[in-house]
Amino acid sequence: MEEKAKKLEKKLAAEPLNFESFFSKKAMAMKASEVRELLKLVEAGDVISLAGGLPAPETFPVDIIKDITAEVLEKHADKALQYGTTKGFTPLRLALARWMEKRYEIPMSKVEIMTVAGSQQALDLIGRVFINPGDVIAVEGPTYLAAIQAFKYYDPEFVSIPMDDNGMIVDVLEEKLAELKREGKRLKVLYTVSTFQNPMGVTMSVDRRKRLVELADEYDFLIVEDGPYSELRYSGEPILPIKHFDDSGRVIYLGTFSKILAPGFRIGWVAAHPHLIRKMEIAKQSIDLCTNMLGQVIAWKYVEDGHLDRHIPEIVEFYKPRRDAMLEALEEYMPEGVRWTKPDGGMFIWVTLPEGIDTKLMMEKAVAKGVAYVPGEAFFTHREVKNAMRLNFTYVPEEKIREGVKRLAEVVEEELKRLKG
Amino acid sequence: MEEKAKKLEKKLAAEPLNFESFFSKKAMAMKASEVRELLKLVEAGDVISLAGGLPAPETFPVDIIKDITAEVLEKHADKALQYGTTKGFTPLRLALARWMEKRYEIPMSKVEIMTVAGSQQALDLIGRVFINPGDVIAVEGPTYLAAIQAFKYYDPEFVSIPMDDNGMIVDVLEEKLAELKREGKRLKVLYTVSTFQNPMGVTMSVDRRKRLVELADEYDFLIVEDGPYSELRYSGEPILPIKHFDDSGRVIYLGTFSKILAPGFRIGWVAAHPHLIRKMEIAKQSIDLCTNMLGQVIAWKYVEDGHLDRHIPEIVEFYKPRRDAMLEALEEYMPEGVRWTKPDGGMFIWVTLPEGIDTKLMMEKAVAKGVAYVPGEAFFTHREVKNAMRLNFTYVPEEKIREGVKRLAEVVEEELKRLKG
Repeated sequence: MEEKAKKLEKKLAAEPLNFESFFSKKAMAMKASEVRELLKLVEAGDVISLAGGLPAPETFPVDIIKDITAEVLEKHADKALQYGTTKGFTPLRLALARWMEKRYEIPMSKVEIMTVAGSQQALDLIGRVFINPGDVIAVEGPTYLAAIQAFKYYDPEFVSIPMDDNGMIVDVLEEKLAELKREGKRLKVLYTVSTFQNPMGVTMSVDRRKRLVELADEYDFLIVEDGPYSELRYSGEPILPIKHFDDSGRVIYLGTFSKILAPGFRIGWVAAHPHLIRKMEIAKQSIDLCTNMLGQVIAWKYVEDGHLDRHIPEIVEFYKPRRDAMLEALEEYMPEGVRWTKPDGGMFIWVTLPEGIDTKLMMEKAVAKGVAYVPGEAFFTHREVKNAMRLNFTYVPEEKIREGVKRLAEVVEEELKRLKG
Repeated sequence: MEEKAKKLEKKLAAEPLNFESFFSKKAMAMKASEVRELLKLVEAGDVISLAGGLPAPETFPVDIIKDITAEVLEKHADKALQYGTTKGFTPLRLALARWMEKRYEIPMSKVEIMTVAGSQQALDLIGRVFINPGDVIAVEGPTYLAAIQAFKYYDPEFVSIPMDDNGMIVDVLEEKLAELKREGKRLKVLYTVSTFQNPMGVTMSVDRRKRLVELADEYDFLIVEDGPYSELRYSGEPILPIKHFDDSGRVIYLGTFSKILAPGFRIGWVAAHPHLIRKMEIAKQSIDLCTNMLGQVIAWKYVEDGHLDRHIPEIVEFYKPRRDAMLEALEEYMPEGVRWTKPDGGMFIWVTLPEGIDTKLMMEKAVAKGVAYVPGEAFFTHREVKNAMRLNFTYVPEEKIREGVKRLAEVVEEELKRLKG
């Protein structure tokens, strides 16, 4: 025995553990988000970061949260501290159903609600419940980065539908659907951030929403409508979600408290046909048993007692000057040939530079000048667009936004000169 | 257009949406936990449930949580309400590393810690990061039900290692390892609830822990050591975790606040070699971005300020009489031929009835008599044991435990009579 142990010790010293040999094939293919790695650069020094996607902490209703939390721990500690059901805390689910009925005109009778650990978890669950390897999934080009990551794990075939100022170009989708049909393929799930999209800031028009639902009925696919930014409207008229136009139960709506309360709670929700929710609930059982209860009970009081409806206008008031500052600065500083979206809400503006500029390669120069953004290619499933970038206007104060855009414009001018030179 | 819409409407009326056609193959195979369905029966009426796995809410340190939460929202709201990093809140990770070093003699220098949404999420991540379809995974027979569910999604080949009063029978594992080797197969991951096991309540002896690590080195597999109950010791001497005996970095330790603070926070942690943590961190990015921050900051203060170490003895003091009551009642009421484990801690006792009794079939009679348990077969990967059951002693007060065991004994006696008759 002793001898055997010694032999082993020698063996281990000679060949340290080969960790790679334990990883699954899928884990071997997993890569850290490049964007996150890029952003690590940014943390040092005097760099104005327009890259992040964080809400401003000034918009967190800390005093309301303090009061609610104290009340919750006084009156509902038994619920807030115990395990809950996988589908979520029922009073919160009901409060959300009522809120969506009132605000989005989605009848409570037509949806069931499940709470999730942020809507990111819903994206993973959707992958798990709906995507077989090779299934065709349509996303917007560009689309939310972490949705690509979440779905990618399940090995779909991505179809990317181009965007304009009115959101996803549904005519192109229709052509694509016909083409898929000719090839004997079926689109299974379409993912859209319908309002104040990440990363473009644009909103899908009502006509396109209606047409999209018609196409979904005709070609028999599911629509996943991700609505994290829809309450952050600084101009223009409110627009009903796609889910409102859905009669057959094929739209899965994702909501979250991250932008209307605070992201630290990690509370989101899925509103969908009960049949779809049931399967997502079973999938969630083995993933985390249930969503954190303290956060759910706090979120319940926040909705139920009307704080949510009272607080949204305050967030809007806080962000509007920041959006305006960014639009004004772009107008003032950007050289000719640069285009950008003019969002009515949300957190982002999408800037397109003249062809020939690669924003990923330009990033190092920008950071050297003291400004950061997210290169646009990361938001495409096939990285097909090189000359765009996403700017965030919610996290940084107005004067810094102006200075950041000014610095960025200088970098762009230099690039343009270099190109022409 | 109008006409087309009408045609569609007709079509939809004739053929309502076929939801099943959207589900992935894996989703089609997912089933709701039978145990959960069984437990729904129990909620009605005067049934004493010894079936659950819930901690007693009386053990939640509500006053401490109130104080900490108020302090956290006063001083650390910016952190507690914002997005965090995927790896977790650094002060909590450090506090846990120090606590494990002190309490479990696991050098901080040898592990990295990642926080997770309860250790259930760690089980899913382990499946995702390590299991290819067909990989051989060893579990205890019986083992934690939701670990089977979590791993099953990744299609492993399960090997079940039998248990006795000293935990997993490591000699049988050794035989199995040799057999696998002859077949040209490799065990990749072994999962154990090493201390006060769920569902048996037994603890793996020190000798077996050491031998297990030797075998892991010799046969090159990873050990996942799940430790949710290890602090709940009512008798006997503390025992160091398997992770303590691990020199090569192949033991992944899972901890949780669910039984030493409260489950509602959904805060657990993984302590493992940095190389393994790195991959789990990348996998977690697309699953939920980060674990809920309010819970993490509260958990940090709870550990850092010494509340954890002061509160554990209070939980132990609360549960010990319940364990004693159950052991005494079993002794007093159970007919001859019934055996049970005598745990030094944890939440469960495992009862084995004479051969021929099927505890799943007996369940309906038990509920009719006013008592519930979890049939043992659910804890086996191949449902090979029919005559056992798991009893929980933490949730129900002593007098109910006595009454519940008495009712259960009556059911067993009737079954025995029926068998003999």
